[in-house]
Amino acid sequence: MNRKQIIEQIKSKRSFLCVGLDTDLSKIPAHLLDTEDPIFEFNKAIIDATKDYCVAYKPNNAFYECYGVKGWESLQKTIEYIPENCFIIADAKRGDIGNTSNYYAKTFFETMNCDAVTVAPYMGEDSVKPFLQFENKWVIVLALTSNAGALDFQFTTDTKGEELYKKVLRKTAQWGTPDNMMYVVGATRAEGIGEVRKIVPDHFFLVPGVGAQGGSLEDVANYGWNQDCGLLVNSSRGIIYASNGTDFAEKAGIEAKKIQEEMAKILDQKGF
Amino acid sequence: MNRKQIIEQIKSKRSFLCVGLDTDLSKIPAHLLDTEDPIFEFNKAIIDATKDYCVAYKPNNAFYECYGVKGWESLQKTIEYIPENCFIIADAKRGDIGNTSNYYAKTFFETMNCDAVTVAPYMGEDSVKPFLQFENKWVIVLALTSNAGALDFQFTTDTKGEELYKKVLRKTAQWGTPDNMMYVVGATRAEGIGEVRKIVPDHFFLVPGVGAQGGSLEDVANYGWNQDCGLLVNSSRGIIYASNGTDFAEKAGIEAKKIQEEMAKILDQKGF
Repeated sequence: MNRKQIIEQIKSKRSFLCVGLDTDLSKIPAHLLDTEDPIFEFNKAIIDATKDYCVAYKPNNAFYECYGVKGWESLQKTIEYIPENCFIIADAKRGDIGNTSNYYAKTFFETMNCDAVTVAPYMGEDSVKPFLQFENKWVIVLALTSNAGALDFQFTTDTKGEELYKKVLRKTAQWGTPDNMMYVVGATRAEGIGEVRKIVPDHFFLVPGVGAQGGSLEDVANYGWNQDCGLLVNSSRGIIYASNGTDFAEKAGIEAKKIQEEMAKILDQKGF
Repeated sequence: MNRKQIIEQIKSKRSFLCVGLDTDLSKIPAHLLDTEDPIFEFNKAIIDATKDYCVAYKPNNAFYECYGVKGWESLQKTIEYIPENCFIIADAKRGDIGNTSNYYAKTFFETMNCDAVTVAPYMGEDSVKPFLQFENKWVIVLALTSNAGALDFQFTTDTKGEELYKKVLRKTAQWGTPDNMMYVVGATRAEGIGEVRKIVPDHFFLVPGVGAQGGSLEDVANYGWNQDCGLLVNSSRGIIYASNGTDFAEKAGIEAKKIQEEMAKILDQKGF
Protein backbone atom coordinates (compact mmCIF):
# COMPACT_ATOMS: atom_id res chain seq x y z
CA MET A 1 0.00 0.00 0.00
CA ASN A 2 1.45 3.38 -0.95
CA ARG A 3 1.14 6.75 0.74
CA LYS A 4 -1.71 7.94 -1.44
CA GLN A 5 -3.71 4.80 -0.65
CA ILE A 6 -3.11 5.18 3.09
CA ILE A 7 -4.40 8.74 2.95
CA GLU A 8 -7.45 7.65 0.96
CA GLN A 9 -8.26 5.04 3.57
CA ILE A 10 -7.96 7.58 6.38
CA LYS A 11 -10.29 9.94 4.53
CA SER A 12 -12.90 7.34 3.66
CA LYS A 13 -12.93 5.49 6.99
CA ARG A 14 -12.63 8.74 9.01
CA SER A 15 -10.03 6.96 11.12
CA PHE A 16 -6.29 6.75 11.61
CA LEU A 17 -6.54 3.85 14.03
CA CYS A 18 -4.17 0.88 13.97
CA VAL A 19 -5.32 -2.17 15.93
CA GLY A 20 -2.45 -3.99 17.62
CA LEU A 21 -2.86 -7.76 17.46
CA ASP A 22 -0.81 -8.65 20.56
CA THR A 23 -2.69 -11.87 20.95
CA ASP A 24 -1.86 -13.73 24.13
CA LEU A 25 -3.27 -17.20 24.87
CA SER A 26 -3.44 -16.37 28.57
CA LYS A 27 -5.75 -13.43 27.89
CA ILE A 28 -8.13 -14.63 25.22
CA PRO A 29 -11.58 -16.00 26.07
CA ALA A 30 -11.56 -19.53 27.46
CA HIS A 31 -14.10 -20.83 24.94
CA LEU A 32 -11.61 -20.30 22.10
CA LEU A 33 -8.93 -22.48 23.64
CA ASP A 34 -10.63 -25.66 22.40
CA THR A 35 -10.41 -24.60 18.75
CA GLU A 36 -7.60 -25.83 16.51
CA ASP A 37 -5.91 -22.43 16.28
CA PRO A 38 -7.19 -20.22 19.12
CA ILE A 39 -4.93 -17.28 18.22
CA PHE A 40 -6.18 -17.19 14.65
CA GLU A 41 -9.82 -17.67 15.73
CA PHE A 42 -9.46 -14.76 18.13
CA ASN A 43 -7.78 -12.54 15.53
CA LYS A 44 -10.35 -13.39 12.88
CA ALA A 45 -13.21 -12.33 15.14
CA ILE A 46 -11.35 -9.17 16.21
CA ILE A 47 -10.63 -8.25 12.59
CA ASP A 48 -14.25 -8.82 11.56
CA ALA A 49 -15.43 -6.62 14.42
CA THR A 50 -12.95 -3.76 13.96
CA LYS A 51 -12.12 -3.57 10.23
CA ASP A 52 -14.57 -0.76 9.53
CA TYR A 53 -13.04 1.41 12.25
CA CYS A 54 -9.33 1.10 11.59
CA VAL A 55 -6.96 1.61 8.66
CA ALA A 56 -4.16 -0.66 9.88
CA TYR A 57 -3.39 -3.82 11.84
CA LYS A 58 -0.17 -4.42 13.71
CA PRO A 59 0.56 -7.95 14.86
CA ASN A 60 3.49 -7.93 17.27
CA ASN A 61 5.74 -10.85 16.36
CA ALA A 62 6.75 -11.73 19.91
CA PHE A 63 3.25 -12.95 20.72
CA TYR A 64 3.35 -15.42 17.81
CA GLU A 65 7.00 -16.47 17.92
CA CYS A 66 6.65 -17.60 21.51
CA TYR A 67 4.57 -20.54 20.21
CA GLY A 68 7.24 -21.50 17.67
CA VAL A 69 6.16 -23.00 14.35
CA LYS A 70 2.51 -23.07 15.40
CA GLY A 71 2.67 -19.37 16.27
CA TRP A 72 4.10 -18.46 12.86
CA GLU A 73 1.26 -20.39 11.26
CA SER A 74 -1.25 -18.34 13.24
CA LEU A 75 0.58 -15.15 12.25
CA GLN A 76 0.66 -16.03 8.57
CA LYS A 77 -3.05 -16.96 8.55
CA THR A 78 -3.88 -13.71 10.37
CA ILE A 79 -2.00 -11.61 7.83
CA GLU A 80 -3.75 -13.39 4.98
CA TYR A 81 -7.11 -12.72 6.62
CA ILE A 82 -6.62 -8.94 6.99
CA PRO A 83 -8.70 -7.12 4.33
CA GLU A 84 -6.86 -5.60 1.37
CA ASN A 85 -7.81 -2.05 2.29
CA CYS A 86 -5.94 -2.28 5.61
CA PHE A 87 -2.26 -1.48 6.05
CA ILE A 88 -0.35 -4.37 7.68
CA ILE A 89 2.53 -3.63 10.02
CA ALA A 90 4.79 -6.42 11.27
CA ASP A 91 5.91 -5.08 14.63
CA ALA A 92 9.12 -7.08 14.66
CA LYS A 93 11.80 -4.50 15.57
CA ARG A 94 14.41 -6.14 13.38
CA GLY A 95 17.81 -4.85 12.20
CA ASP A 96 21.11 -6.57 11.39
CA ILE A 97 24.12 -6.16 9.09
CA GLY A 98 23.14 -5.43 5.49
CA ASN A 99 23.21 -8.94 4.06
CA THR A 100 21.09 -10.19 6.95
CA SER A 101 18.62 -7.29 7.00
CA ASN A 102 17.98 -8.13 3.38
CA TYR A 103 16.62 -11.52 4.51
CA TYR A 104 14.45 -9.89 7.14
CA ALA A 105 13.07 -7.58 4.47
CA LYS A 106 12.25 -10.61 2.30
CA THR A 107 10.63 -12.28 5.29
CA PHE A 108 8.16 -9.51 5.97
CA PHE A 109 7.62 -8.07 2.49
CA GLU A 110 7.67 -11.20 0.35
CA THR A 111 7.04 -14.28 2.49
CA MET A 112 4.58 -12.63 4.89
CA ASN A 113 3.30 -9.96 2.48
CA CYS A 114 3.14 -7.19 5.09
CA ASP A 115 3.20 -3.53 4.08
CA ALA A 116 5.62 -2.39 6.75
CA VAL A 117 8.05 -3.61 9.38
CA THR A 118 9.42 -1.86 12.46
CA VAL A 119 13.22 -1.58 12.54
CA ALA A 120 15.69 -0.68 15.31
CA PRO A 121 18.30 1.91 14.25
CA TYR A 122 21.27 1.00 16.50
CA MET A 123 23.26 -0.73 13.74
CA GLY A 124 22.99 2.21 11.33
CA GLU A 125 22.54 2.71 7.61
CA ASP A 126 23.32 -0.71 6.17
CA SER A 127 20.93 -2.30 8.68
CA VAL A 128 18.03 -0.10 7.53
CA LYS A 129 18.59 0.38 3.80
CA PRO A 130 17.79 -3.18 2.64
CA PHE A 131 14.22 -2.64 3.83
CA LEU A 132 13.89 0.37 1.50
CA GLN A 133 14.42 -1.56 -1.73
CA PHE A 134 10.85 -2.88 -2.01
CA GLU A 135 8.19 -0.99 -3.95
CA ASN A 136 5.24 0.25 -1.90
CA LYS A 137 6.73 -1.28 1.25
CA TRP A 138 7.67 0.66 4.35
CA VAL A 139 10.26 0.67 7.09
CA ILE A 140 9.10 2.13 10.40
CA VAL A 141 12.17 3.22 12.35
CA LEU A 142 12.14 3.31 16.15
CA ALA A 143 12.74 6.94 17.04
CA LEU A 144 11.17 7.85 20.37
CA THR A 145 9.60 4.86 22.06
CA SER A 146 6.74 4.85 24.56
CA ASN A 147 8.43 2.83 27.32
CA ALA A 148 10.32 3.97 30.42
CA GLY A 149 13.59 2.58 28.98
CA ALA A 150 13.44 5.20 26.20
CA LEU A 151 15.12 7.52 28.72
CA ASP A 152 18.24 5.34 28.93
CA PHE A 153 19.71 6.13 25.52
CA GLN A 154 17.27 7.98 23.27
CA PHE A 155 17.69 11.29 25.09
CA THR A 156 21.49 11.16 25.27
CA THR A 157 22.70 14.57 24.11
CA ASP A 158 25.77 14.73 21.89
CA THR A 159 28.49 17.37 21.81
CA LYS A 160 26.47 19.42 19.30
CA GLY A 161 23.48 19.45 21.64
CA GLU A 162 21.49 16.93 19.62
CA GLU A 163 19.61 14.13 21.38
CA LEU A 164 20.07 10.62 20.01
CA TYR A 165 16.46 10.23 18.86
CA LYS A 166 16.82 13.47 16.89
CA LYS A 167 20.03 12.28 15.30
CA VAL A 168 18.28 9.03 14.39
CA LEU A 169 15.50 11.03 12.72
CA ARG A 170 17.86 13.37 10.88
CA LYS A 171 20.13 10.63 9.56
CA THR A 172 17.53 7.99 8.70
CA ALA A 173 15.43 10.61 6.87
CA GLN A 174 18.36 10.87 4.44
CA TRP A 175 18.21 7.13 3.72
CA GLY A 176 14.52 6.88 2.89
CA THR A 177 11.69 9.20 1.91
CA PRO A 178 8.24 10.00 3.32
CA ASP A 179 7.00 7.46 0.75
CA ASN A 180 8.85 4.48 2.21
CA MET A 181 9.73 5.42 5.79
CA MET A 182 7.73 6.14 8.92
CA TYR A 183 8.73 6.57 12.57
CA VAL A 184 7.66 5.02 15.84
CA VAL A 185 6.91 7.89 18.20
CA GLY A 186 5.36 7.04 21.56
CA ALA A 187 2.13 8.75 22.62
CA THR A 188 3.40 8.84 26.19
CA ARG A 189 5.83 11.60 25.15
CA ALA A 190 3.41 14.12 23.64
CA GLU A 191 5.85 17.02 23.57
CA GLY A 192 8.43 14.73 22.04
CA ILE A 193 6.00 14.15 19.18
CA GLY A 194 6.13 17.87 18.48
CA GLU A 195 9.93 17.80 18.46
CA VAL A 196 9.88 14.87 16.06
CA ARG A 197 7.39 16.62 13.79
CA LYS A 198 9.78 19.60 13.44
CA ILE A 199 12.56 17.36 12.14
CA VAL A 200 10.46 15.17 9.83
CA PRO A 201 7.49 17.31 8.80
CA ASP A 202 6.30 15.00 6.02
CA HIS A 203 6.66 11.49 7.42
CA PHE A 204 3.91 9.35 8.88
CA PHE A 205 4.26 8.36 12.54
CA LEU A 206 3.19 5.08 14.06
CA VAL A 207 2.11 6.10 17.55
CA PRO A 208 1.80 3.40 20.22
CA GLY A 209 1.00 4.16 23.82
CA VAL A 210 -2.57 5.48 23.58
CA GLY A 211 -4.89 3.58 25.94
CA ALA A 212 -3.30 1.04 28.31
CA GLN A 213 0.03 2.89 28.28
CA GLY A 214 -1.63 6.22 29.15
CA GLY A 215 -1.10 8.49 26.11
CA SER A 216 -3.81 10.93 24.97
CA LEU A 217 -5.23 10.94 21.45
CA GLU A 218 -5.86 14.66 21.57
CA ASP A 219 -2.24 15.42 22.47
CA VAL A 220 -1.00 13.12 19.72
CA ALA A 221 -3.15 14.92 17.15
CA ASN A 222 -2.12 18.35 18.44
CA TYR A 223 1.59 17.64 18.33
CA GLY A 224 1.87 15.16 15.46
CA TRP A 225 -0.59 16.27 12.77
CA ASN A 226 0.69 17.18 9.30
CA GLN A 227 -0.93 18.05 5.96
CA ASP A 228 -1.64 14.35 5.24
CA CYS A 229 -2.78 13.54 8.79
CA GLY A 230 0.59 11.80 9.14
CA LEU A 231 -0.54 9.61 12.02
CA LEU A 232 -1.34 5.97 12.58
CA VAL A 233 -2.32 5.68 16.22
CA ASN A 234 -2.13 2.19 17.67
CA SER A 235 -4.24 0.67 20.40
CA SER A 236 -3.80 -2.98 21.34
CA ARG A 237 -4.92 -4.14 24.77
CA GLY A 238 -7.62 -1.45 25.17
CA ILE A 239 -9.43 -2.87 22.15
CA ILE A 240 -8.67 -6.57 21.86
CA TYR A 241 -9.08 -7.36 25.56
CA ALA A 242 -12.13 -5.15 26.14
CA SER A 243 -13.90 -8.32 27.28
CA ASN A 244 -12.72 -11.87 27.86
CA GLY A 245 -16.18 -13.37 27.56
CA THR A 246 -18.02 -14.69 24.52
CA ASP A 247 -18.79 -11.05 23.65
CA PHE A 248 -15.07 -10.21 23.23
CA ALA A 249 -15.35 -9.33 19.53
CA GLU A 250 -18.45 -7.22 19.96
CA LYS A 251 -16.81 -5.31 22.83
CA ALA A 252 -13.62 -4.86 20.79
CA GLY A 253 -15.72 -3.43 17.96
CA ILE A 254 -17.37 -1.00 20.39
CA GLU A 255 -13.98 0.18 21.72
CA ALA A 256 -12.57 0.57 18.20
CA LYS A 257 -15.66 2.51 17.13
CA LYS A 258 -15.28 4.85 20.13
CA ILE A 259 -11.73 5.71 19.08
CA GLN A 260 -12.78 6.00 15.43
CA GLU A 261 -15.45 8.52 16.41
CA GLU A 262 -12.92 10.58 18.35
CA MET A 263 -10.64 10.44 15.33
CA ALA A 264 -13.46 11.46 12.98
CA LYS A 265 -14.00 14.57 15.11
CA ILE A 266 -10.31 15.43 14.88
CA LEU A 267 -10.32 14.88 11.11
CA ASP A 268 -13.40 17.10 10.81
CA GLN A 269 -11.82 19.83 12.94
CA LYS A 270 -8.73 19.73 10.74
CA GLY A 271 -10.91 19.89 7.63
CA PHE A 272 -9.35 16.70 6.35
CA MET B 1 24.67 -23.61 29.93
CA ASN B 2 26.32 -21.53 32.66
CA ARG B 3 29.60 -19.62 32.65
CA LYS B 4 31.54 -22.41 34.32
CA GLN B 5 30.37 -24.91 31.72
CA ILE B 6 31.29 -22.57 28.85
CA ILE B 7 34.80 -22.21 30.27
CA GLU B 8 35.11 -25.98 30.69
CA GLN B 9 34.14 -26.50 27.05
CA ILE B 10 36.73 -23.95 25.89
CA LYS B 11 39.40 -25.70 27.95
CA SER B 12 38.55 -29.20 26.84
CA LYS B 13 37.95 -28.47 23.16
CA ARG B 14 40.87 -25.99 22.99
CA SER B 15 38.59 -23.69 21.05
CA PHE B 16 36.48 -20.59 21.49
CA LEU B 17 34.93 -20.86 18.05
CA CYS B 18 31.26 -20.21 17.35
CA VAL B 19 29.99 -21.46 14.00
CA GLY B 20 27.39 -19.17 12.46
CA LEU B 21 24.58 -21.09 10.78
CA ASP B 22 23.54 -18.40 8.26
CA THR B 23 22.13 -21.05 5.99
CA ASP B 24 21.02 -19.69 2.64
CA LEU B 25 19.23 -21.88 0.07
CA SER B 26 20.92 -19.99 -2.76
CA LYS B 27 24.36 -20.93 -1.43
CA ILE B 28 24.02 -24.54 -0.32
CA PRO B 29 25.07 -27.43 -2.55
CA ALA B 30 22.60 -28.21 -5.34
CA HIS B 31 22.35 -31.91 -4.44
CA LEU B 32 20.66 -30.99 -1.13
CA LEU B 33 17.84 -29.06 -2.76
CA ASP B 34 15.95 -32.26 -3.56
CA THR B 35 15.74 -33.32 0.08
CA GLU B 36 12.64 -32.63 2.16
CA ASP B 37 14.33 -30.01 4.33
CA PRO B 38 17.51 -28.81 2.59
CA ILE B 39 18.37 -26.24 5.26
CA PHE B 40 18.22 -28.82 8.03
CA GLU B 41 20.12 -31.42 5.96
CA PHE B 42 22.84 -28.86 5.34
CA ASN B 43 23.02 -27.80 9.00
CA LYS B 44 23.07 -31.40 10.21
CA ALA B 45 26.08 -32.21 8.03
CA ILE B 46 27.82 -28.94 9.03
CA ILE B 47 27.23 -29.65 12.72
CA ASP B 48 28.51 -33.24 12.42
CA ALA B 49 31.65 -31.97 10.68
CA THR B 50 32.42 -29.04 13.01
CA LYS B 51 31.15 -30.01 16.47
CA ASP B 52 34.56 -31.14 17.71
CA TYR B 53 36.15 -27.82 16.79
CA CYS B 54 33.67 -25.30 18.16
CA VAL B 55 32.02 -24.56 21.48
CA ALA B 56 28.99 -22.69 20.15
CA TYR B 57 26.56 -22.46 17.23
CA LYS B 58 24.79 -19.29 16.20
CA PRO B 59 21.89 -19.63 13.78
CA ASN B 60 20.89 -16.20 12.50
CA ASN B 61 17.10 -16.02 12.53
CA ALA B 62 16.76 -13.95 9.36
CA PHE B 63 17.93 -16.86 7.21
CA TYR B 64 15.18 -19.09 8.61
CA GLU B 65 12.35 -16.60 8.97
CA CYS B 66 12.56 -15.70 5.30
CA TYR B 67 11.06 -19.13 4.53
CA GLY B 68 8.18 -18.54 6.95
CA VAL B 69 6.72 -21.52 8.82
CA LYS B 70 8.95 -23.97 6.95
CA GLY B 71 12.02 -21.95 7.94
CA TRP B 72 11.07 -22.00 11.62
CA GLU B 73 10.69 -25.75 11.38
CA SER B 74 14.22 -26.00 9.99
CA LEU B 75 15.49 -23.72 12.76
CA GLN B 76 13.79 -25.69 15.51
CA LYS B 77 15.10 -29.01 14.15
CA THR B 78 18.59 -27.53 13.86
CA ILE B 79 18.57 -26.33 17.46
CA GLU B 80 17.40 -29.74 18.64
CA TYR B 81 20.22 -31.39 16.68
CA ILE B 82 23.04 -29.32 18.21
CA PRO B 83 24.94 -31.43 20.78
CA GLU B 84 24.37 -30.71 24.46
CA ASN B 85 27.95 -29.59 25.04
CA CYS B 86 27.58 -26.70 22.59
CA PHE B 87 26.30 -23.25 23.53
CA ILE B 88 23.37 -22.17 21.32
CA ILE B 89 22.96 -18.52 20.39
CA ALA B 90 19.82 -17.28 18.64
CA ASP B 91 21.14 -14.32 16.67
CA ALA B 92 17.79 -12.58 16.56
CA LYS B 93 18.57 -9.00 17.65
CA ARG B 94 15.26 -8.59 19.45
CA GLY B 95 14.12 -5.92 21.91
CA ASP B 96 10.73 -4.36 22.65
CA ILE B 97 8.80 -2.86 25.57
CA GLY B 98 9.00 -4.97 28.73
CA ASN B 99 5.80 -6.99 28.38
CA THR B 100 6.73 -7.87 24.79
CA SER B 101 10.40 -8.62 25.43
CA ASN B 102 9.17 -11.12 27.97
CA TYR B 103 7.51 -13.06 25.12
CA TYR B 104 10.68 -12.92 23.06
CA ALA B 105 12.59 -14.30 26.04
CA LYS B 106 10.08 -17.15 26.30
CA THR B 107 10.42 -17.76 22.56
CA PHE B 108 14.15 -18.28 22.62
CA PHE B 109 14.70 -19.71 26.10
CA GLU B 110 11.63 -21.92 26.52
CA THR B 111 10.09 -22.69 23.12
CA MET B 112 13.38 -22.88 21.20
CA ASN B 113 15.59 -23.91 24.13
CA CYS B 114 18.55 -21.72 23.14
CA ASP B 115 21.15 -20.66 25.67
CA ALA B 116 21.40 -17.06 24.55
CA VAL B 117 19.77 -14.42 22.37
CA THR B 118 21.20 -11.23 20.89
CA VAL B 119 19.33 -8.05 21.92
CA ALA B 120 19.39 -4.47 20.60
CA PRO B 121 19.73 -1.83 23.35
CA TYR B 122 17.95 1.16 21.77
CA MET B 123 14.76 0.79 23.86
CA GLY B 124 16.62 0.66 27.18
CA GLU B 125 16.31 -1.17 30.46
CA ASP B 126 12.80 -2.61 30.34
CA SER B 127 13.51 -4.02 26.86
CA VAL B 128 16.57 -5.94 28.10
CA LYS B 129 15.67 -7.00 31.64
CA PRO B 130 12.99 -9.60 30.81
CA PHE B 131 15.71 -11.68 29.12
CA LEU B 132 17.68 -11.77 32.38
CA GLN B 133 15.02 -13.59 34.42
CA PHE B 134 15.88 -17.10 33.14
CA GLU B 135 18.33 -19.33 34.96
CA ASN B 136 21.47 -20.24 33.01
CA LYS B 137 20.25 -18.22 30.03
CA TRP B 138 22.07 -15.28 28.50
CA VAL B 139 21.36 -11.98 26.84
CA ILE B 140 24.00 -10.80 24.38
CA VAL B 141 23.67 -7.03 23.99
CA LEU B 142 24.74 -5.29 20.79
CA ALA B 143 27.52 -2.95 21.84
CA LEU B 144 29.96 -2.29 19.00
CA THR B 145 28.88 -4.00 15.80
CA SER B 146 31.11 -5.11 12.93
CA ASN B 147 29.28 -3.36 10.10
CA ALA B 148 29.92 0.02 8.45
CA GLY B 149 26.66 1.40 9.88
CA ALA B 150 28.10 1.09 13.39
CA LEU B 151 29.65 4.50 12.74
CA ASP B 152 26.25 6.19 12.38
CA PHE B 153 25.18 6.12 16.03
CA GLN B 154 27.42 3.91 18.15
CA PHE B 155 30.30 6.42 18.23
CA THR B 156 28.14 9.47 18.97
CA THR B 157 29.87 11.28 21.83
CA ASP B 158 27.72 12.76 24.58
CA THR B 159 28.29 15.94 26.56
CA LYS B 160 30.38 14.03 29.11
CA GLY B 161 32.66 12.74 26.36
CA GLU B 162 31.26 9.22 26.43
CA GLU B 163 30.53 7.41 23.18
CA LEU B 164 27.14 5.73 22.86
CA TYR B 165 28.52 2.18 22.73
CA LYS B 166 30.40 2.87 25.98
CA LYS B 167 27.28 4.21 27.61
CA VAL B 168 25.43 1.09 26.47
CA LEU B 169 28.12 -1.05 28.10
CA ARG B 170 28.21 0.93 31.32
CA LYS B 171 24.44 1.01 31.79
CA THR B 172 23.55 -2.52 30.66
CA ALA B 173 26.33 -3.94 32.87
CA GLN B 174 24.29 -2.63 35.81
CA TRP B 175 21.22 -4.59 34.69
CA GLY B 176 22.87 -7.99 34.32
CA THR B 177 26.00 -9.75 35.49
CA PRO B 178 28.90 -11.52 33.77
CA ASP B 179 26.91 -14.69 34.48
CA ASN B 180 23.90 -13.78 32.36
CA MET B 181 25.08 -11.07 29.98
CA MET B 182 27.56 -10.94 27.11
CA TYR B 183 28.28 -8.31 24.45
CA VAL B 184 28.49 -8.30 20.68
CA VAL B 185 31.80 -6.65 19.78
CA GLY B 186 32.83 -6.70 16.13
CA ALA B 187 36.24 -8.10 15.16
CA THR B 188 36.53 -5.42 12.49
CA ARG B 189 37.10 -2.84 15.27
CA ALA B 190 40.05 -4.42 17.07
CA GLU B 191 41.00 -1.34 19.09
CA GLY B 192 37.36 -0.92 20.00
CA ILE B 193 37.51 -4.39 21.56
CA GLY B 194 40.22 -3.10 23.88
CA GLU B 195 38.05 -0.13 24.84
CA VAL B 196 35.13 -2.43 25.54
CA ARG B 197 37.32 -4.72 27.64
CA LYS B 198 38.28 -1.79 29.90
CA ILE B 199 34.61 -1.08 30.70
CA VAL B 200 33.45 -4.69 31.14
CA PRO B 201 36.51 -6.65 32.23
CA ASP B 202 34.64 -9.80 33.25
CA HIS B 203 32.01 -10.30 30.54
CA PHE B 204 32.21 -12.68 27.63
CA PHE B 205 32.18 -11.14 24.14
CA LEU B 206 30.55 -12.62 21.08
CA VAL B 207 32.85 -11.47 18.29
CA PRO B 208 31.56 -11.60 14.72
CA GLY B 209 33.53 -10.31 11.77
CA VAL B 210 36.49 -12.71 11.66
CA GLY B 211 36.86 -14.25 8.20
CA ALA B 212 34.59 -12.94 5.41
CA GLN B 213 34.20 -9.54 7.14
CA GLY B 214 37.98 -9.11 7.50
CA GLY B 215 38.70 -9.17 11.25
CA SER B 216 41.86 -10.85 12.63
CA LEU B 217 41.74 -13.56 15.29
CA GLU B 218 45.07 -12.51 16.72
CA ASP B 219 43.90 -8.92 17.22
CA VAL B 220 40.70 -10.11 18.84
CA ALA B 221 42.65 -12.24 21.30
CA ASN B 222 45.12 -9.46 22.01
CA TYR B 223 42.47 -6.86 22.73
CA GLY B 224 39.64 -8.96 24.12
CA TRP B 225 41.18 -11.67 26.29
CA ASN B 226 40.29 -11.86 29.99
CA GLN B 227 41.03 -14.33 32.82
CA ASP B 228 38.30 -16.72 31.58
CA CYS B 229 39.21 -16.35 27.88
CA GLY B 230 36.06 -14.21 27.67
CA LEU B 231 35.68 -14.68 23.93
CA LEU B 232 33.37 -16.54 21.59
CA VAL B 233 34.62 -15.78 18.09
CA ASN B 234 32.13 -16.38 15.32
CA SER B 235 32.78 -17.43 11.76
CA SER B 236 29.89 -18.14 9.40
CA ARG B 237 30.47 -17.94 5.66
CA GLY B 238 34.19 -18.81 5.85
CA ILE B 239 33.28 -22.20 7.32
CA ILE B 240 29.85 -23.21 6.09
CA TYR B 241 30.42 -22.18 2.47
CA ALA B 242 34.01 -23.44 2.18
CA SER B 243 32.76 -25.61 -0.70
CA ASN B 244 29.44 -25.86 -2.50
CA GLY B 245 30.12 -29.35 -3.80
CA THR B 246 29.30 -32.71 -2.26
CA ASP B 247 32.39 -32.25 -0.07
CA PHE B 248 30.87 -29.14 1.64
CA ALA B 249 30.76 -30.68 5.11
CA GLU B 250 34.28 -32.10 4.90
CA LYS B 251 35.62 -28.71 3.76
CA ALA B 252 33.67 -26.93 6.51
CA GLY B 253 35.26 -29.30 9.02
CA ILE B 254 38.72 -28.51 7.63
CA GLU B 255 38.12 -24.75 7.92
CA ALA B 256 36.74 -25.06 11.45
CA LYS B 257 39.72 -27.23 12.44
CA LYS B 258 42.13 -24.60 11.06
CA ILE B 259 40.57 -21.92 13.24
CA GLN B 260 40.45 -24.29 16.23
CA GLU B 261 44.18 -24.95 15.85
CA GLU B 262 44.92 -21.22 15.78
CA MET B 263 42.78 -20.86 18.89
CA ALA B 264 44.55 -23.75 20.63
CA LYS B 265 47.84 -21.93 20.07
CA ILE B 266 46.43 -18.77 21.61
CA LEU B 267 45.04 -20.71 24.58
CA ASP B 268 48.43 -22.39 25.05
CA GLN B 269 50.24 -19.07 24.89
CA LYS B 270 47.90 -17.66 27.50
CA GLY B 271 48.44 -20.73 29.68
CA PHE B 272 44.70 -21.36 29.71
